[in-house]
Amino acid sequence: MSDRSDIPSGEDSLIARYFKPLATDLGAFGLRDDAALIKADGHDLVINTDAIVEGVHYLPDDPPDTIARKALRVNLSDLAAKGAEPAGFVLTLALRDVDESWLSAFAQGLGEDARAFGCPLLGGDTVSTPGPVMISVTAWGRVPVGRMVHRFGARPGDRVMVTGTIGDASLGLAVLQGKPAAAALAADPTAREMLIGRYRLPQPRNALAAAVRDVATASIDVSDGLAGDLAKLCAASGVTADIELAKIPTSPATASLLARGATDLEAITSGGDDFEILCTVPDDRRKALTEEALRAGVAVTDIGVIVAGEGVPRFRDAQGRAVTLKRLSFSHF
Amino acid sequence: MSDRSDIPSGEDSLIARYFKPLATDLGAFGLRDDAALIKADGHDLVINTDAIVEGVHYLPDDPPDTIARKALRVNLSDLAAKGAEPAGFVLTLALRDVDESWLSAFAQGLGEDARAFGCPLLGGDTVSTPGPVMISVTAWGRVPVGRMVHRFGARPGDRVMVTGTIGDASLGLAVLQGKPAAAALAADPTAREMLIGRYRLPQPRNALAAAVRDVATASIDVSDGLAGDLAKLCAASGVTADIELAKIPTSPATASLLARGATDLEAITSGGDDFEILCTVPDDRRKALTEEALRAGVAVTDIGVIVAGEGVPRFRDAQGRAVTLKRLSFSHF
Repeated sequence: MSDRSDIPSGEDSLIARYFKPLATDLGAFGLRDDAALIKADGHDLVINTDAIVEGVHYLPDDPPDTIARKALRVNLSDLAAKGAEPAGFVLTLALRDVDESWLSAFAQGLGEDARAFGCPLLGGDTVSTPGPVMISVTAWGRVPVGRMVHRFGARPGDRVMVTGTIGDASLGLAVLQGKPAAAALAADPTAREMLIGRYRLPQPRNALAAAVRDVATASIDVSDGLAGDLAKLCAASGVTADIELAKIPTSPATASLLARGATDLEAITSGGDDFEILCTVPDDRRKALTEEALRAGVAVTDIGVIVAGEGVPRFRDAQGRAVTLKRLSFSHF
Repeated sequence: MSDRSDIPSGEDSLIARYFKPLATDLGAFGLRDDAALIKADGHDLVINTDAIVEGVHYLPDDPPDTIARKALRVNLSDLAAKGAEPAGFVLTLALRDVDESWLSAFAQGLGEDARAFGCPLLGGDTVSTPGPVMISVTAWGRVPVGRMVHRFGARPGDRVMVTGTIGDASLGLAVLQGKPAAAALAADPTAREMLIGRYRLPQPRNALAAAVRDVATASIDVSDGLAGDLAKLCAASGVTADIELAKIPTSPATASLLARGATDLEAITSGGDDFEILCTVPDDRRKALTEEALRAGVAVTDIGVIVAGEGVPRFRDAQGRAVTLKRLSFSHF
């Protein structure tokens, strides 16, 4: 054989160079194998898959390390909402070409997040595409046997609780796209950066997974818009909800844009990319969640109540009047 | 709320219509949840992820049911080579638009294969893309604890065994692309269809998973080219191999193209998409594999021997002379 054959192919070299250093879990076999092994003794594994596409879920000139983190974090957010502790993930990466500086930053961000969230890379596939970059992650996590928190299970009287703040990420995207919110924030670079950061870098609430598992009757991560995701939870649970719009938690930047008319409640509640946990909690367990959230440094807000009935949730303004939202959530199609 | 809000979004409707009927496993919760649950008691789970991209791994006008089957089967092939029994999969589907007839055929093919291979769909994500369609599958399978078959483990003296036939799929692609093989087969539509079928529809050797687990010291699925995949197995095992090119199993159609000079051994051994199992077996266990293969109706062929040493495998012609292959396998980059 020629010496040339000893040079690994571009794909192997790319994997060896960028991803092998991340695959330190024993079950990943240093990415020297085709598949990863999941030891599961005495617990359930929750598995989730979510993909992000260039120009759809992130912008082409977003920093590559935040693109990698976002690809992983959107999955971690689902695990958190299900009450699962992250355990590992596999990655499919479709690339147009090999841009070493992009890949290096991508892999570094991915590795840092894998360590920070205790969610090791166990395998993957790298393919070429003539189209936009696409990153698909399948992640799984552990829950005690039978303790996964579902979309279904919400009961009339349960309080509707949401972590963090809502609407920042979709406003961050609006800023990056030069929409009206951008002009309104021209004089406030700190607010701009905060909103853009919320778009580029979700903050999945994995610190609250155990608390959600302990107290929530139903749970979902808010990824496509609070109103639409709540509607899904209600439909799965066979109930509906009464939500007070004024109670939906917003950051000071978002509140200021709302006050100035540079955005509206419909955009806030139907915008995507919040990656907060929306869960339903019996009234007498609300305090347990709030206290755990306080310990974790994450806000958690009571925005309304589950009620018997069918149909999409009802939203009311500060005066108790019904508000009709024309749009509930982002949809790809 | 307006009645319009009760109409599910395009994405939900697409999932409900096409994929919910497939998700009959209890752990899929009828796709009403964000994540799937894997019960694992007393066994190891092997997890694998592989994606296929339109125009890269399949042709835009391939029948949609074969595209779906291929997306799943390329993953099943990895599980078979690892000695694992298929247990479930999740799917990420990136689409430019919603073409109902395409999706319907895609979902039907996927559902039929999921049933045929005992590998239920447990969840997924559907996203839009401005680029080519991409289908990413993460599949997992069960092996008894500690019994996953690795790429490493081959020992000097082990026989190198391969299932089925090699080279058909890459010739099928050549036919579809109108390359020289197409002209050579103009008068033989049966051979054309067979080769095209091998490209579009891999035949993963899951029937042999248990036998591979019982007798193989190392194993890999042949997806990027026999020569390159064998080189990977040898490198991982710290050995090399002596392969007799004339023993590499070919179909009558491929043998005829070879005889007529319409293809060559380099194209056969470095072409991708075979999805056969390449494994190493101690000499005294060879018979056990051959007998099990006979029962499963799958050919298995001894093509050479593992030898001590380093570097890429050595290939010899029928006269025992060394043959240098310029190219070992397909690489995306």
